[in-house]
Amino acid sequence: MRDAIALLERTPAVLDALLRNLPDAWTQTNEGPDTWTVFDVLGHLIHGERTDWMPRVKIILEAGETRAFEPFDRLAQQRESAGMSLPELLDVFAGLRRESLDQLRALNLQPPDVERRGRHPALGVVTLGQLISTWVVHDLTHLHQISRVMAHQYRDAVGPWSAYLGVLQCEGHST
Amino acid sequence: MRDAIALLERTPAVLDALLRNLPDAWTQTNEGPDTWTVFDVLGHLIHGERTDWMPRVKIILEAGETRAFEPFDRLAQQRESAGMSLPELLDVFAGLRRESLDQLRALNLQPPDVERRGRHPALGVVTLGQLISTWVVHDLTHLHQISRVMAHQYRDAVGPWSAYLGVLQCEGHST
Repeated sequence: MRDAIALLERTPAVLDALLRNLPDAWTQTNEGPDTWTVFDVLGHLIHGERTDWMPRVKIILEAGETRAFEPFDRLAQQRESAGMSLPELLDVFAGLRRESLDQLRALNLQPPDVERRGRHPALGVVTLGQLISTWVVHDLTHLHQISRVMAHQYRDAVGPWSAYLGVLQCEGHST
Repeated sequence: MRDAIALLERTPAVLDALLRNLPDAWTQTNEGPDTWTVFDVLGHLIHGERTDWMPRVKIILEAGETRAFEPFDRLAQQRESAGMSLPELLDVFAGLRRESLDQLRALNLQPPDVERRGRHPALGVVTLGQLISTWVVHDLTHLHQISRVMAHQYRDAVGPWSAYLGVLQCEGHST
């Protein structure tokens, strides 16, 4: 749990250091039709903070396996980010993540709690420990995606070096 | 050039926000035999700063296609990082990157300069613009790699969610 929180609490500062005031050529461009910009990814992270992670922790603690989680809306950011600037999204995400981790620490979970069970609407029985680990790897999935989306913008500019640059070989891993 | 420098100058702060004082479980672990830890990646970035990017810019400006670049040593960090701590590597990288970009800005390159040609020992003729773009995508390749190496440490911990987490589907793209 300590290792998980160490990473979760760093993500807003990582995204801030990478993205605040970066030219739109990096943040408002995508990898082609039906792919996400960096701006879209930030909106998705915000939606997860509002509706997914701590809400699911609470469902497990309150209802265990008897109540399935709400399905996650992977396109909600298109509505919710409308009219916002990228620095605003960074600020909103940082504030929500801080609140999430304050709530998580306040639960004062003990080692046996990670075995507590909940019900995912598609995956079936999952544990609280798996949920928290997934929150961490979800952050890392989107950092991985952001690096790939930004690298894509220089796919032609690097010329023959493209063969040596791993991120340009990555075709994404959407499910 | 402006967009490239905007990203290059952010990388040390991104790595600092992500890695400084992070538990060793994230930074001293790898993806299996003959793969790199996050600590190894930092050493590799330092070696690139010392021997690759600005040295190659200078070779292009001084000698054009008449002098091939020195080949890049992809294993040098195993010698050079020995005995150093991860925070020390972050400090060294930040200092070297600052010096590199000071030198790059001092050259006051103009738009036609990006077409100046050099010779890569394996790839043949390349341009100064391709070199600078490659420097950027090299940073992004290693940010992509670091997210993947860290996510790997939770591969089992996420349980059935692994199917939904793109970074866990990525098998790397070493050349």
